[in-house]
Amino acid sequence: MKNYNISIIKGDGIGPEIVDEAIKVLDAVSYSCGFSLEYKEYLMGGIAIDVTGEPLPNETVQGVLNSDACLFGAIGGEKWDTLPRDKRPETGLLKFREAMEVYANLRPAIIYDELVNASTLKPEVIEGVDIMIVRELIGGIYFGKPRENDGFKAYNTMVYTKPEIERIGKQAFELAMKRDKRVCSVDKANVLEVSQLWRDTMEEVARDYPEVELSHMYVDNAAMQLVRNPKQFDVIVTGNIFGDILSDTASMVVGSIGLLPSASTGDKTAIYEPIHGSAPDIAGQGIANPIATIESAAMMLRYSLNEIEAANKIDTAIKKALKDGYRTKDLAAYDAKEVVTTSEMGDIIANYI
Amino acid sequence: MKNYNISIIKGDGIGPEIVDEAIKVLDAVSYSCGFSLEYKEYLMGGIAIDVTGEPLPNETVQGVLNSDACLFGAIGGEKWDTLPRDKRPETGLLKFREAMEVYANLRPAIIYDELVNASTLKPEVIEGVDIMIVRELIGGIYFGKPRENDGFKAYNTMVYTKPEIERIGKQAFELAMKRDKRVCSVDKANVLEVSQLWRDTMEEVARDYPEVELSHMYVDNAAMQLVRNPKQFDVIVTGNIFGDILSDTASMVVGSIGLLPSASTGDKTAIYEPIHGSAPDIAGQGIANPIATIESAAMMLRYSLNEIEAANKIDTAIKKALKDGYRTKDLAAYDAKEVVTTSEMGDIIANYI
Ligand SMILES: CC(C)[C@H](C(=O)O)[C@@H](O)C(=O)O
Ligand SMILES: CC(C)[C@H](C(=O)O)[C@@H](O)C(=O)O
Repeated sequence: MKNYNISIIKGDGIGPEIVDEAIKVLDAVSYSCGFSLEYKEYLMGGIAIDVTGEPLPNETVQGVLNSDACLFGAIGGEKWDTLPRDKRPETGLLKFREAMEVYANLRPAIIYDELVNASTLKPEVIEGVDIMIVRELIGGIYFGKPRENDGFKAYNTMVYTKPEIERIGKQAFELAMKRDKRVCSVDKANVLEVSQLWRDTMEEVARDYPEVELSHMYVDNAAMQLVRNPKQFDVIVTGNIFGDILSDTASMVVGSIGLLPSASTGDKTAIYEPIHGSAPDIAGQGIANPIATIESAAMMLRYSLNEIEAANKIDTAIKKALKDGYRTKDLAAYDAKEVVTTSEMGDIIANYI
Repeated sequence: MKNYNISIIKGDGIGPEIVDEAIKVLDAVSYSCGFSLEYKEYLMGGIAIDVTGEPLPNETVQGVLNSDACLFGAIGGEKWDTLPRDKRPETGLLKFREAMEVYANLRPAIIYDELVNASTLKPEVIEGVDIMIVRELIGGIYFGKPRENDGFKAYNTMVYTKPEIERIGKQAFELAMKRDKRVCSVDKANVLEVSQLWRDTMEEVARDYPEVELSHMYVDNAAMQLVRNPKQFDVIVTGNIFGDILSDTASMVVGSIGLLPSASTGDKTAIYEPIHGSAPDIAGQGIANPIATIESAAMMLRYSLNEIEAANKIDTAIKKALKDGYRTKDLAAYDAKEVVTTSEMGDIIANYI
């Protein structure tokens, strides 16, 4: 029987509750598909600060590097917001992404038919939306140097090199080849030099993919078009901070940030996590929606373990749970037959497998 | 009789058509309110490149500086997109903003009751939305140095100093005092040093406005909240590029980018312009919506000339035209009784004054 080593980072706030449900579902699906998963838990974020004094203990980096894939919840909370910058949960997350070299963050935004009313956008605008946002994750202004704040003047550097743009571009085009063969690259080339290099390099990458149609859009227009007509997009590729903003916009198009998974991949261990945060305000109440994390686990099976059948089973079980009217509190207003807790939702999806 | 000197920059694409309609309306309202306007036209953008070789002739800067206010259409078009960066229309616009020192860009997003169906968002989500976005316009990554693109590596600098943040902060708080007394400052302080200085400085400015409630939001969350629940916002204050993105998102909340005016103000001559672009694809067809530009002219009367009655008259006339069912082509699908051309819309609004 095949066995995989999975590193688990539960993190802060609702992180532990939602990851527990994903593990429940993973156990059900691995049993049913005849492979086994071994989990090892590591610390990151606020809890790591509390326990070890560091947001990203070295043991976590080593443990995850030695695993086949990493399932991650969420980190952060007000409690740690006033610590010096290098001791904050977010700094741990950024260092973690850097250490894992996960340069490509894939954020699919797909509408569940059952939840077409959950968006603030009109149903006819969003029906059938299926966007893959490919966000560069370990470059750009997040990591650029020099960076400083002396209390009078502060600055950050938005920087990209051609190889960085090429590798994320290739990822986007490869994904587009398996989809509708359209890539929209988002930048601000009418103002920024770094965007001009981005645009020129995307044009070069495109030459290797003659079947894929490449278009360019300014980031302000893209933010607008996502709300105006999200169906126009197939794959969107963009830099770190533009991707951060646009994928959150896209999550609202879909209706709930509690539904959206993500994969962060590079040449080492990939990380799978919901795109939502740690939501400390609702932690421990059993009302968090575990679907984004369960769907992230499905992405892990698909992309890192190549257990496609198992991934499909999870997708089907989630859809059935939604179709049968089970909703966590965040979606209670949308065609709910029964409002369930975080752990009940996990049970239902696991049972459907 | 009072007389004002107005500098006019028509620009490219639909710029000339929409500015002509605004002048038509200004003439009607100045006649009816007993003051006179003298217009002088200047070149900027693509047309300036074609005529003078420069996107921003020095004569334009001098002429606008010597005027009481500037009404501006839009610039840019594919024709000039391949010129070297310092010869492009956008570079002219950025230099113009810098020369005028218009550090505060005010972008109101208000719903017209008559057009509540024009948004892709559900009517109940947007009814009564009234947001004022205050965007810093002559700092941040748009103007930051160093900036370079050597073909292998490219970078820009997002930089703010405390005085720059203070003056835009004060503008936002002053505006909030006349509104619902709430300011939401948008940044990315969990990642960027420049945002940390932004946040700290806003806290300091807030001390002088004890009646105003200050909150902070990360830019990714703000993009999401604008779509999820736009009614929660009163005044939003943010840096240059975040403001660029968020105000375009807000325009879609309102439903049409053809409706939204803006004012760019500082200590010298203020500039009034629609937030939409030059839309070269529809130029010269008589289908552009002139309302954003006419409403920009109303803002000019209100803020620069203190002709409040005249400004109110324009607001009322626009509302009446919409209420009576007149629509340009972009809004033909939304409760139109009669679809009219750009210049017919100008006539109707002028007649209603
Ligand atoms: C928590 C924060 C540092 C992070 C980011 O900005 O990347 C988050 O918003 C995300 O999108 O994963
Ligand atoms: C044309 C462009 C340079 C400009 C900007 O980014 O400021 C435009 O998008 C705007 O918002 O006025």
